[in-house]
Amino acid sequence: MARSIGVTIWNEFRHEQQDDRIAAIYPNGIHRAIGDGLTKEPDLAVRTATLDEAEHGLTDEALTHTDVLIWWGHKAHDEVTDDVVERVHRRVLQGMGLIVLHSGHFSKIFKRLMGTTCDLKWRAVGEKERLWVVAPGHPIVEGVGEFIELEEEEMYGEHFDVPPPETLVFVSWFSGGEVFRSGACYTRGAGKIFYFRPGHETHPTYFHDDVRRVIANAVRWAAPVSGPARVFGKVEPQEAILSGAR
Amino acid sequence: MARSIGVTIWNEFRHEQQDDRIAAIYPNGIHRAIGDGLTKEPDLAVRTATLDEAEHGLTDEALTHTDVLIWWGHKAHDEVTDDVVERVHRRVLQGMGLIVLHSGHFSKIFKRLMGTTCDLKWRAVGEKERLWVVAPGHPIVEGVGEFIELEEEEMYGEHFDVPPPETLVFVSWFSGGEVFRSGACYTRGAGKIFYFRPGHETHPTYFHDDVRRVIANAVRWAAPVSGPARVFGKVEPQEAILSGAR
Amino acid sequence: MARSIGVTIWNEFRHEQQDDRIAAIYPNGIHRAIGDGLTKEPDLAVRTATLDEAEHGLTDEALTHTDVLIWWGHKAHDEVTDDVVERVHRRVLQGMGLIVLHSGHFSKIFKRLMGTTCDLKWRAVGEKERLWVVAPGHPIVEGVGEFIELEEEEMYGEHFDVPPPETLVFVSWFSGGEVFRSGACYTRGAGKIFYFRPGHETHPTYFHDDVRRVIANAVRWAAPVSGPARVFGKVEPQEAILSGAR
Amino acid sequence: MARSIGVTIWNEFRHEQQDDRIAAIYPNGIHRAIGDGLTKEPDLAVRTATLDEAEHGLTDEALTHTDVLIWWGHKAHDEVTDDVVERVHRRVLQGMGLIVLHSGHFSKIFKRLMGTTCDLKWRAVGEKERLWVVAPGHPIVEGVGEFIELEEEEMYGEHFDVPPPETLVFVSWFSGGEVFRSGACYTRGAGKIFYFRPGHETHPTYFHDDVRRVIANAVRWAAPVSGPARVFGKVEPQEAILSGAR
Repeated sequence: MARSIGVTIWNEFRHEQQDDRIAAIYPNGIHRAIGDGLTKEPDLAVRTATLDEAEHGLTDEALTHTDVLIWWGHKAHDEVTDDVVERVHRRVLQGMGLIVLHSGHFSKIFKRLMGTTCDLKWRAVGEKERLWVVAPGHPIVEGVGEFIELEEEEMYGEHFDVPPPETLVFVSWFSGGEVFRSGACYTRGAGKIFYFRPGHETHPTYFHDDVRRVIANAVRWAAPVSGPARVFGKVEPQEAILSGAR
Repeated sequence: MARSIGVTIWNEFRHEQQDDRIAAIYPNGIHRAIGDGLTKEPDLAVRTATLDEAEHGLTDEALTHTDVLIWWGHKAHDEVTDDVVERVHRRVLQGMGLIVLHSGHFSKIFKRLMGTTCDLKWRAVGEKERLWVVAPGHPIVEGVGEFIELEEEEMYGEHFDVPPPETLVFVSWFSGGEVFRSGACYTRGAGKIFYFRPGHETHPTYFHDDVRRVIANAVRWAAPVSGPARVFGKVEPQEAILSGAR
Repeated sequence: MARSIGVTIWNEFRHEQQDDRIAAIYPNGIHRAIGDGLTKEPDLAVRTATLDEAEHGLTDEALTHTDVLIWWGHKAHDEVTDDVVERVHRRVLQGMGLIVLHSGHFSKIFKRLMGTTCDLKWRAVGEKERLWVVAPGHPIVEGVGEFIELEEEEMYGEHFDVPPPETLVFVSWFSGGEVFRSGACYTRGAGKIFYFRPGHETHPTYFHDDVRRVIANAVRWAAPVSGPARVFGKVEPQEAILSGAR
Repeated sequence: MARSIGVTIWNEFRHEQQDDRIAAIYPNGIHRAIGDGLTKEPDLAVRTATLDEAEHGLTDEALTHTDVLIWWGHKAHDEVTDDVVERVHRRVLQGMGLIVLHSGHFSKIFKRLMGTTCDLKWRAVGEKERLWVVAPGHPIVEGVGEFIELEEEEMYGEHFDVPPPETLVFVSWFSGGEVFRSGACYTRGAGKIFYFRPGHETHPTYFHDDVRRVIANAVRWAAPVSGPARVFGKVEPQEAILSGAR
């Protein structure tokens, strides 16, 4: 694939403007921190979009140029308009990749694609997380070790109300006693979806080398493929076949 | 399981009242034909519900007593209210089984649970269909042979826009040249879902012994399990574990 | 299913006869402890078999009457003859259920069916294990809570070199920092296989109510289905179809 | 991935030397026809190996330089030595890709990796096959249309005795009335495996553009990933974690 992959990083971008402690960690917003992690990747062309832009920065034109959309949201999921959700949904089915990060589990678009509540357990005391690789040959773990250790993260625990992942890539261990399916691949239509758990706004997780590596790998894995057109609806009898076969 | 499984067969029940040719095939409605196929099963307690009943016959109370819901709809999917769809959706996540038949692929509830368009190809010329078993040890094919042959059915063809089945049980061959993933298992929350392709209203498919056998098997497979309560939300630190582990 | 399910519990039965500490925990052998957990289940007909019996107690006749085989082995995997392994393998493909416990991960029969090394990490210091349910609607977790807690168990850690489970039912958390896919469903041929992690010989795990409940549930889940005969080999042209269709 | 992918095409290469009709179709052997289809791919470095070479051309050194191994065999599966099978098996678990073509379903290495008989139905009358894409976003169908049509091929029919594919990419329709899961993805250890059905020696299938395209796509999909080392065996207590957590 000689041409670059168009990546749009979407961020709610509210916490960082409203809470000094979070602004101290992500002074330019979570989207910029994620974007900085991708800029050294020569095959990725990165832009960002945020909730408070017109159409949340996700116009038809923006999405047309987006091969993979990264999604971070938390406290304002409900402010994302249904129109934009449907537009993103359509694009995913057409082949656009989608990477949903952390609290994005509760975004309208993720719930729309999963068909479930996407609910889970949580505890925000800053405990140790280890993301163990359970799919060692998967392209998403290229360059990653046996596990990724984050000294302090929010805990997410099972039961995670999503469909069984088509491929389970990471399972998290938390020091408080919980586990979580924290790296999960899905396909919907021609689109690929990766849910990746880490990234609470109170921790500098998106500066972590391995977290950035996983996101970059996931972008490449989720990039669209020029597969067959998906054709639906009424089809005519194929007489050459049918007339004989009946 | 000593107590019987409560089955509700939901049918749109319009074609049968509006089209003489279809009334000739299903004089009491498709739901009655399906129900007759289940009445010889001593462990099943069957009732029916139809679109034009109050709340489509799917009141809270009706659903509370429903272990497995069977769904047939075609031309009036849009008349099913969103309230009822959300009610059924909630019940599926809580563990109620759902069996979606034929043109029910385009029902609101199936699309809601799948997260995709559930679109497909079709051709209604009455061609031969063979449903080949590809999961020979699955409880849904108990008592079924290598394939089920239906002399005349509507064709449904790929691409079928659903998530990859968790278990693929049947693949259909059509004399016109198409294939279709025609028996597909999913889980959503604690609920099990089975999509089963056959049953166009212009053919007497629901009188076919094997089709009836598959539906009865699917009911038992989809019946709820008294598994763990699904607990979500904030959890307190488990001090005995966490204090030491941090 | 009116008739009872024939269960054979196979145990290597060496540790218990050679090591006093283990004999103190399982004085009648691990197979008896597992068997005692199943005897209160009226639908199960349980027998046992051990390595040092003729043909390891797994004669053709014994297997013919076995619907589900439970397997525990550890230090003498290599003493199981290849003939018996092939016999069990054939029966599984024909539909016999197989439940592989703990160190049985390294048995010849499990490796034969998985196609991988089935290797893993381990540490035997008696740490806390929590088996979290991740498939809350699965029949194997009937009657089980959100997790099963074992105060002291051997640790098994990822990477577990098995094919991705078709259904992942449990994920274990260990206090030492590891996770493990500890309840995993597979199908091979017409047979169902469940790998269940707990049960080191130095801990009284098979007296634990929930562990016993899971094994009983797994037996019912893995029981054979009278599905289609699996037919292979050369088939004649089906002239009625083929002559026209070509 | 700047460096090229090392591909070894392994062919039994007997039919072509012993049967004039087959030599007429594949005068340089099936391996050369497959290789010619890959030579226009600039990122692939292709070599071949055949049964009658020393160690079947699959020495340790040859495999060390092989990223993806393509396998075609039919009448001499038993002549492949167990040593070579174990060597290939080890390499697959370490990450080497494996593409098994057509009658390679009965090769020792495929059966070893699948854990089943890999048996199927067949009929060699040269009937029409259509391979329908059921995974339209998968990298293996890049550039392929809705289906691939082969005017004359051997039929392979269900039941195909393999584990359920992790991803099902193609389903074949045959004019004689059968279906087949004809493009199937698996992982074993760190290695990726793709089974691709077409390619009977009596038909010029490996000259077909789409068949060649699928094989090239599959090579790229199956190429190894530099993921985590797979570490097994006894691990020491991680005191910092365990001492507190117990």
